[in-house]
Amino acid sequence: MAGNKAVTYLGPGKVEVDTIDYPGFSLKDGPGVNRANVGREVHHGVILKNVATNICGSDQHMVRGRTTAPEGLVLGHEITGEVVEVGRDVEFVKQGDLVSVPFNIACGRCRNCKEGKTGICLNVNPDRPGSAYGYVDMGGWVGGQAEYVLVPYADWNVLKFPDRDQAMEKILDLTMLSDIFPTGFHGCVSAGVGVGSTVYIAGAGPVGLAAAASAQLLGAAVVIVGDLNEERLAQARSFGCETVDVSKGDPKEQLAEIVGEPEVDCGVDAVGFEARGHGREAATEHPATVLNSLMDITRAGGALGIPGLYVTGDPGASDEAARQGSLSIRIGLGWAKSHAFATGQCPVMRYHRRLMMAILHDRVQIAKAVNATPIPLAEAPRGYQEFDQGAARKYVLDPHGLLANA
Amino acid sequence: MAGNKAVTYLGPGKVEVDTIDYPGFSLKDGPGVNRANVGREVHHGVILKNVATNICGSDQHMVRGRTTAPEGLVLGHEITGEVVEVGRDVEFVKQGDLVSVPFNIACGRCRNCKEGKTGICLNVNPDRPGSAYGYVDMGGWVGGQAEYVLVPYADWNVLKFPDRDQAMEKILDLTMLSDIFPTGFHGCVSAGVGVGSTVYIAGAGPVGLAAAASAQLLGAAVVIVGDLNEERLAQARSFGCETVDVSKGDPKEQLAEIVGEPEVDCGVDAVGFEARGHGREAATEHPATVLNSLMDITRAGGALGIPGLYVTGDPGASDEAARQGSLSIRIGLGWAKSHAFATGQCPVMRYHRRLMMAILHDRVQIAKAVNATPIPLAEAPRGYQEFDQGAARKYVLDPHGLLANA
Amino acid sequence: MAGNKAVTYLGPGKVEVDTIDYPGFSLKDGPGVNRANVGREVHHGVILKNVATNICGSDQHMVRGRTTAPEGLVLGHEITGEVVEVGRDVEFVKQGDLVSVPFNIACGRCRNCKEGKTGICLNVNPDRPGSAYGYVDMGGWVGGQAEYVLVPYADWNVLKFPDRDQAMEKILDLTMLSDIFPTGFHGCVSAGVGVGSTVYIAGAGPVGLAAAASAQLLGAAVVIVGDLNEERLAQARSFGCETVDVSKGDPKEQLAEIVGEPEVDCGVDAVGFEARGHGREAATEHPATVLNSLMDITRAGGALGIPGLYVTGDPGASDEAARQGSLSIRIGLGWAKSHAFATGQCPVMRYHRRLMMAILHDRVQIAKAVNATPIPLAEAPRGYQEFDQGAARKYVLDPHGLLANA
Amino acid sequence: MAGNKAVTYLGPGKVEVDTIDYPGFSLKDGPGVNRANVGREVHHGVILKNVATNICGSDQHMVRGRTTAPEGLVLGHEITGEVVEVGRDVEFVKQGDLVSVPFNIACGRCRNCKEGKTGICLNVNPDRPGSAYGYVDMGGWVGGQAEYVLVPYADWNVLKFPDRDQAMEKILDLTMLSDIFPTGFHGCVSAGVGVGSTVYIAGAGPVGLAAAASAQLLGAAVVIVGDLNEERLAQARSFGCETVDVSKGDPKEQLAEIVGEPEVDCGVDAVGFEARGHGREAATEHPATVLNSLMDITRAGGALGIPGLYVTGDPGASDEAARQGSLSIRIGLGWAKSHAFATGQCPVMRYHRRLMMAILHDRVQIAKAVNATPIPLAEAPRGYQEFDQGAARKYVLDPHGLLANA
Repeated sequence: MAGNKAVTYLGPGKVEVDTIDYPGFSLKDGPGVNRANVGREVHHGVILKNVATNICGSDQHMVRGRTTAPEGLVLGHEITGEVVEVGRDVEFVKQGDLVSVPFNIACGRCRNCKEGKTGICLNVNPDRPGSAYGYVDMGGWVGGQAEYVLVPYADWNVLKFPDRDQAMEKILDLTMLSDIFPTGFHGCVSAGVGVGSTVYIAGAGPVGLAAAASAQLLGAAVVIVGDLNEERLAQARSFGCETVDVSKGDPKEQLAEIVGEPEVDCGVDAVGFEARGHGREAATEHPATVLNSLMDITRAGGALGIPGLYVTGDPGASDEAARQGSLSIRIGLGWAKSHAFATGQCPVMRYHRRLMMAILHDRVQIAKAVNATPIPLAEAPRGYQEFDQGAARKYVLDPHGLLANA
Repeated sequence: MAGNKAVTYLGPGKVEVDTIDYPGFSLKDGPGVNRANVGREVHHGVILKNVATNICGSDQHMVRGRTTAPEGLVLGHEITGEVVEVGRDVEFVKQGDLVSVPFNIACGRCRNCKEGKTGICLNVNPDRPGSAYGYVDMGGWVGGQAEYVLVPYADWNVLKFPDRDQAMEKILDLTMLSDIFPTGFHGCVSAGVGVGSTVYIAGAGPVGLAAAASAQLLGAAVVIVGDLNEERLAQARSFGCETVDVSKGDPKEQLAEIVGEPEVDCGVDAVGFEARGHGREAATEHPATVLNSLMDITRAGGALGIPGLYVTGDPGASDEAARQGSLSIRIGLGWAKSHAFATGQCPVMRYHRRLMMAILHDRVQIAKAVNATPIPLAEAPRGYQEFDQGAARKYVLDPHGLLANA
Repeated sequence: MAGNKAVTYLGPGKVEVDTIDYPGFSLKDGPGVNRANVGREVHHGVILKNVATNICGSDQHMVRGRTTAPEGLVLGHEITGEVVEVGRDVEFVKQGDLVSVPFNIACGRCRNCKEGKTGICLNVNPDRPGSAYGYVDMGGWVGGQAEYVLVPYADWNVLKFPDRDQAMEKILDLTMLSDIFPTGFHGCVSAGVGVGSTVYIAGAGPVGLAAAASAQLLGAAVVIVGDLNEERLAQARSFGCETVDVSKGDPKEQLAEIVGEPEVDCGVDAVGFEARGHGREAATEHPATVLNSLMDITRAGGALGIPGLYVTGDPGASDEAARQGSLSIRIGLGWAKSHAFATGQCPVMRYHRRLMMAILHDRVQIAKAVNATPIPLAEAPRGYQEFDQGAARKYVLDPHGLLANA
Repeated sequence: MAGNKAVTYLGPGKVEVDTIDYPGFSLKDGPGVNRANVGREVHHGVILKNVATNICGSDQHMVRGRTTAPEGLVLGHEITGEVVEVGRDVEFVKQGDLVSVPFNIACGRCRNCKEGKTGICLNVNPDRPGSAYGYVDMGGWVGGQAEYVLVPYADWNVLKFPDRDQAMEKILDLTMLSDIFPTGFHGCVSAGVGVGSTVYIAGAGPVGLAAAASAQLLGAAVVIVGDLNEERLAQARSFGCETVDVSKGDPKEQLAEIVGEPEVDCGVDAVGFEARGHGREAATEHPATVLNSLMDITRAGGALGIPGLYVTGDPGASDEAARQGSLSIRIGLGWAKSHAFATGQCPVMRYHRRLMMAILHDRVQIAKAVNATPIPLAEAPRGYQEFDQGAARKYVLDPHGLLANA
């Protein structure tokens, strides 16, 4: 194997497709690799030939220069592929298996993994609990927007599709299992969405749309998506959601017209720390807007699911507190309404098998919901750019031309 | 019946024992009574001769002038008493019953009550979900630091003690069922405390001590209480808790010495919005200190139970945001650790029966834990004053001299 | 008011429409009325003009003579109607409200009601926990297959439809909220059905079909219904279920063809104690067949939801043990597979509001799924007969001709 | 290493200490080894020098000849020891670690393990889900009543004690973590035991006593243990339990005297399929007695935890149905009371860490509760015999003389 083409971060606003090393069963030094992880042996891993690997909104935080991501970082944590090599210690994953990979890397051996909290595994990232491929401060595991990628602890992490042909027919749906579908679903579950719920989802990007599709799958009665991007709102309406245009003002009034009261049972934050204001403040960032708005419109006794990312350090924030990850939150309001708040990375493994079943048995059309759009790996830079400009698309990179017919 | 002696709020720092009307089966106008509640018929209520009625830390917020409580407000929401009159529509509560009354008034007929969320009943407070006796913005139900009190929706609300004599022997324990024992217990439950947990409880006031006793009852392995009042910390140690003196600095290091690592499984905020800083900042209010500190010391994947009160408006706060109930919260840190946050009034009814059982069968000594101290009703002003000065006591008012032997 | 036409049980195989007393706010003596309930005052009740009242499979147990139901018993526990009179103590239900009534009568004041276990209320049936309208050994509350019916504890029990016109448009769906829709849903929930589950439902009668629709609403990937009545199986297929004809033998092999393995995640028993055997034993009763079969085909770690009725006494059973409600159950098999079993009446109140929301927002077509078939009250005897003969229909009685356009 | 002394089953009533092979990192053929497991490589395993390994009541089923266990089977599934060799693929367990081993062997890689259902792992026993050391039909993993034992999937399975010296001081308590303490605890948890519960535990053998200690740790108000062995009942009373002597008749009346009503909230079956009758039937086996009795005395809405073993085949049963694992169960009674039933092997990993914490922090004295009695490995036959005769002791084998001072 001569090389391995991969999407690389080269500084704010700049990504490129470069050739990097073909993966082996150890973690080599490189941009963003935690020193304590250098040389780590990965006999428990498999090497995948990537079939589909998506651009994620959280990649954009790095590419926009809102993090401390180093130049040269190989991007990509949404990975679906075929097993081409199997590490010495792998027992149940086989060459030729077509698998989905959770974006969170987990060891399957620590206290948190045993409790199903794979988003905060203790053994894969020397910096802190929790890890991911191709992400700043996440341990240095090489990103998967590439032709090939190493997946550690493969027996634990990967989800095998039961039938290869059946899977290839729905590959644009199944590729969403690596991150956004479980992430949106987790946001809904932790917001208490169930049969008959009314749900407001802040943000009509891919995670927000995946949350909306999840809410429908969970039996929600009314699913409302708020955003200030009309193209994305139209996308939400395309599969039966109601929408609120927050550029026109606070969502409360628009909500009341839809639901018949100015409140919903459940609130989901699919925006995170780069939130903009509502109404006249829509032109500028107001990072606590979404959280505070959700407390306002979620009924007493309701819950907020917060899959949207909030960070411990944001060098690009507009004030000192926000640079430390502190936001001015109306906690008094939430307390008066007995709200519960659930935060953090989605533990993908908790959900991906059942969501795969829902896809394979035609219970959900997640690719349509998020407008999955395959493009060649070589065109990744265009995908990043269009996505950053607000395209209502979920870009799926196609490193080996296998999605042509998808 | 000639009258009814009761504790009345007369302005910042001032409470008095006055004579108010003997209660009847309707809600009359008076200080703090919501207009929409004036004249409300209460045939579903009972009138209690109060046996024990406690001073609560949340009363102090009003008495310290940190709320918009009107002068003349009759105080008191921790009520235990004997049924002396039974309303026309009451079916299962009988004259002579000795009962505990949850501080949250609930109708037993709305959606929230049916879901067990009695802390945010929709039908008793015209202002917002949730109500209480003798409290500002809670509907105007007359307070219970009095000889007699009206308890609405009695069939739903009250908890009858199975045996009167047995109950009188443990009355100082049982009186904690109306608020602080369930409130502390709820804080623990919502923080995920269970068998084998390590728990940090911020605040060694009565709720914090009740939370500590609750954590022990739930089987926690290590229970640590933090405060800056040495007398209260000594009280915590008296029943087997570890303690941290936050006046000496951030709790993290002291914690590490106790637990062997600088983190606990579960964090409980038993302080609320009048929090002071840690270490050198202990002399002044830093209202988000407790929340931010708990995120720092609670392990990834842990939860924060927040029974401590946060308010939607705090006229006495030091900055404008805090006056609106907005605090600068390190949400980025909590998110990185996948924390969950549970807020709000404790739904007392969810817990009081089982906690009564634990008391009656000697599984917990809650009165000792909180240092229950009975004083005559007439001496309530002294109780308020000493409590405000940090006495490590829970003052139990004794309106009829029935606690003499307790 | 001159009278009140009602469906009355007159002995095995015989029901008639008779004129009974118009209801008042007390419980009078009559066939099946528990002595301790005679004369009970019901000021907390409302009187309904019934809009729709359904024949239930559990009524058939009585009509087939398989219980000790007394002659003269007024039948019917599936009630939807308009409030025409409001008892003195009712506060939140108003004249003119269109409401659904849970089949289980509950006081809203006992320990079980407070815990949401309204199917085993302690205060309405002197014989045992749990009650229902028009049913043997359930306290003697007059049945609702009538023009008018008394509903006790109305503030607690009834579910008001938010808009009368909207409700009348979907009345054949909404009438299923009184029993079979929540009952089927409860069977699924207690069997662990969720997004992506594979589910086997034993029985394609109305409860089985409602369970199947519920499983779909809960996001199940594959829903399989087993029965030996081809018409009912066809009904199941009409809304997307897979089916198994148990008259052709044990379901395991047919299941394997559908699911790809001989097991499902979740099993629901929608048959109960009058079960017939599988295959060659289909001609005769084998009361433990369904339970034992479900243990066989439910995967290890799965759960069985058992909404199908099992009784403490069955005078018509074929052996002495079954006459006492004892069946020969393969508990060793269930234990080896770590199965969990959930039994009992569905606590309708736990689900009816959210299922109403799903109906009103077009998330489920329950009337179509169960083939709701309105007939005049006067034709109830025909409905009973056809239903007993296996018609794939859910008969909805129309006491006032209001369903003509439904 | 010359050899490995181990307890071997030699036919009904007969066990012996023999010398078997010292373990290696593969599973060799031998008595009871599933053919498909022969030769299985176990590079993920560790070899333990056993410090404590207990005789279990479920071993007695085999030794009494009530199973198809083959002669020559090496017994023992309650294992605590020191890691002396580490397999090639083990990453987080180190030589010298002192660890507890769950009796259920689990791969940590299958669907069930990922869901925390380690008692029904899919990858370790070719016969059926679920496995254990030294047990019939459980895959053939060599038993641990030996000097040394192989523990597969060590990174997943073992629980390391944080401090060796501290652990050795409490080793008689910690050895109960491998089975009976979690098993008793699981019985309580699945019966719904919590703070304030009243609990009846059928059986005062070691699992019953461990369940009783667990119930106390969980905060139960009243813990009642029933048995017909007075010595074991005395043992239960020694740590604060109430007791019922079922040889004197049905437990209901004795229960009523203790609790004040003839019912408890929660029932735990710590007996299983070799149950004897109550009262005059106590001399003979009545395998469904415990289950039926628990349904009688558990309140409506309560749950039954069933850690007691029920088997799919019992060659020694008195009737044909029982030989197939079918018992005559009063399901009608359970249904009328809305009981829930939880069966199966305890998934030890779900509980062992937190129970270890409770032991290390002196929250529970489990060794005292079960009367832990260390004896040399060589005296195992005596231990089996005395235990079979009803000694109120939990025999702890001491293969290396390390428990002398415990």
